[in-house]
Amino acid sequence: MLDQHAAGPRTPGTATRGETVPTVPPAETAADAVDVSALLERGRTLATPVLRAAVDRLAPPMDTVSAYHFGWIDAEGNPADGDGGKAVRPALAVLSAEVTGAAPEVGIPGAVAVELVHNFSLLHDDLMDGDEQRRHRDTVWKVHGPAQAILVGDALFALANEILLELGTVEAGRATRRLTTATRALIDGQAQDISYEHRDRVSVEECLEMEGNKTGALLAASSSIGAVLGGADDRTADTLEKYGYHLGLAFQAVDDLLGIWGDPVSTGKQTWSDLRQRKKSLPVVAALAAGGSASERLGEILAADAKSSDFENFSEEEFASRAALIEEAGGREWTAQEARRQHNTAIQALHAIDMPDRVRDRFTALADFVVVRKR
Amino acid sequence: MLDQHAAGPRTPGTATRGETVPTVPPAETAADAVDVSALLERGRTLATPVLRAAVDRLAPPMDTVSAYHFGWIDAEGNPADGDGGKAVRPALAVLSAEVTGAAPEVGIPGAVAVELVHNFSLLHDDLMDGDEQRRHRDTVWKVHGPAQAILVGDALFALANEILLELGTVEAGRATRRLTTATRALIDGQAQDISYEHRDRVSVEECLEMEGNKTGALLAASSSIGAVLGGADDRTADTLEKYGYHLGLAFQAVDDLLGIWGDPVSTGKQTWSDLRQRKKSLPVVAALAAGGSASERLGEILAADAKSSDFENFSEEEFASRAALIEEAGGREWTAQEARRQHNTAIQALHAIDMPDRVRDRFTALADFVVVRKR
Repeated sequence: MLDQHAAGPRTPGTATRGETVPTVPPAETAADAVDVSALLERGRTLATPVLRAAVDRLAPPMDTVSAYHFGWIDAEGNPADGDGGKAVRPALAVLSAEVTGAAPEVGIPGAVAVELVHNFSLLHDDLMDGDEQRRHRDTVWKVHGPAQAILVGDALFALANEILLELGTVEAGRATRRLTTATRALIDGQAQDISYEHRDRVSVEECLEMEGNKTGALLAASSSIGAVLGGADDRTADTLEKYGYHLGLAFQAVDDLLGIWGDPVSTGKQTWSDLRQRKKSLPVVAALAAGGSASERLGEILAADAKSSDFENFSEEEFASRAALIEEAGGREWTAQEARRQHNTAIQALHAIDMPDRVRDRFTALADFVVVRKR
Repeated sequence: MLDQHAAGPRTPGTATRGETVPTVPPAETAADAVDVSALLERGRTLATPVLRAAVDRLAPPMDTVSAYHFGWIDAEGNPADGDGGKAVRPALAVLSAEVTGAAPEVGIPGAVAVELVHNFSLLHDDLMDGDEQRRHRDTVWKVHGPAQAILVGDALFALANEILLELGTVEAGRATRRLTTATRALIDGQAQDISYEHRDRVSVEECLEMEGNKTGALLAASSSIGAVLGGADDRTADTLEKYGYHLGLAFQAVDDLLGIWGDPVSTGKQTWSDLRQRKKSLPVVAALAAGGSASERLGEILAADAKSSDFENFSEEEFASRAALIEEAGGREWTAQEARRQHNTAIQALHAIDMPDRVRDRFTALADFVVVRKR
């Protein structure tokens, strides 16, 4: 039950596509002084060489297919300098090592393992979902065929466990166990995502559960894995996972806002991207659950769309009118508030355990970044 | 280099399809007194309830799809009593626990984990290879669609690690690491198998390497995993893996013989099954490597077949004549000898380490069974 979260009546929004998503105006804290770009860059710099060495272990052609997926080479095999994504996960993994007083380097195998698991899931999800593009490039199954997408995904998953377990320590075993739990959740989330596609209605609770599995669980593991490798106890690890889980839900709420109202120039996606894919994302399910005339009209329109044979030829204006209805019904505002609620829960978790202030400020700054980002 | 193995000239064979594959006539040993059926049944009885409980952890519809794959229910969801296969892996896993003097039950999580990894690979391989039938039933991707085959395969792989790591012991970490190494080999083998399909010629060495990866590695892990869980040292585990690896190669050599000359009533496959699939199995690659007139004629015919648009309509006689050429070139005899060589290497490994005689006899009996089986 999420009654206290229910999307209530609101003044019709005036914001339009491309405007800043209304999120957290962070209070003045020490976290403001943290250079988030440098923090993300540190994670990337520490993890990438080890990640590349790990991928180099794969037998041909899996090494090449992986290198294409990661954006290190193009489809013809020429070196490329691809957009490796925001790299929030490796940044969290090396930062979490510092919770225990260890050097960030202690978190590197964890950073590499979470990146491998994340990319295993991307490879398989893109194939299952039939997605032809990722980060402005053709997906692996599109370029190298479905068999390679399956096989290389499997290989990256196995490699993630290998990288951790070859450390040969008790801590590595604990880290692998937590990563396995997260991976199972990731798979559960994808199963839910697929099953929801075939349903007319999805509740807000079901959507949050799915997003918790698909996004929260691996950010949770990313936020604890370095600490576990550094010898943190279970309570510390659980609390860091709580931070990461809610950070993931905040991240996903913002993603869902950007999926409808994001600026295509920043996101690299089409306008109204999630509406074009009929995604039952948070703003949509919240708007449908809100009740009231806009909510009801939206329900009727989306039900008709689901049966429409002409959906693919819909104009910009038709998608814009659906987005306006979602906003009028309160789905946009509810999702923005949800991002703030999850952000706050994440930050609160950080105060339940001891860690150096400098490390807490960095975790806080990463959480702030996640909710104000525009892509 | 396999010069000493090279398929030499031989008296043209007289054996025909359905006849017993000529393999090891085991010397009279204590292993003869072992009841192999009971040993296989013990592995199945110990592992199955835990395997079913593990699969029950999966979220719908993955639990149901898995139950269909394992033959516990039919495509409509009704209870079924499917053919779960020979169950050599769980039998080896629980037996290996006894090497250390532990109870066979100590090997159960290992038995379940190897079965989960084996079935993960079947689910994905059937989809990659486009195989529509397994054990006389439609494959999962055929019944439940490709996305479920990918997803449930992923889930079984993750579950394998979960089952081991939740033991929370140092031994479980070591067992998971060895299983991960085997899984990586399994994936390498499938990559090789796929790449060989697009090639005209595959060498005997390449074929053996691929079969070692696809079959040897997981039988190796099965043969050591119980011992590792029981606290065996690395040398003992390595030696048991050597036994299992060569057992796997013997197993696969026999499989390759049955794939051409097996009795369809026993194997449940079509006549000349591997020839219909143009599989570059051991008898074929050995025959092509042997040289001589039959070998050359075979090479010409198979090259023509590869280009033939009428291949699917070939008659029984056309496949029979190819099988006869493989035999005339020495491919059948070479493969039967190879099964014996691998069997012997496996048995020798058993004598390099200490274990109760009763346990060694059972390992020996399982190896004997693998090479004399008819399905």
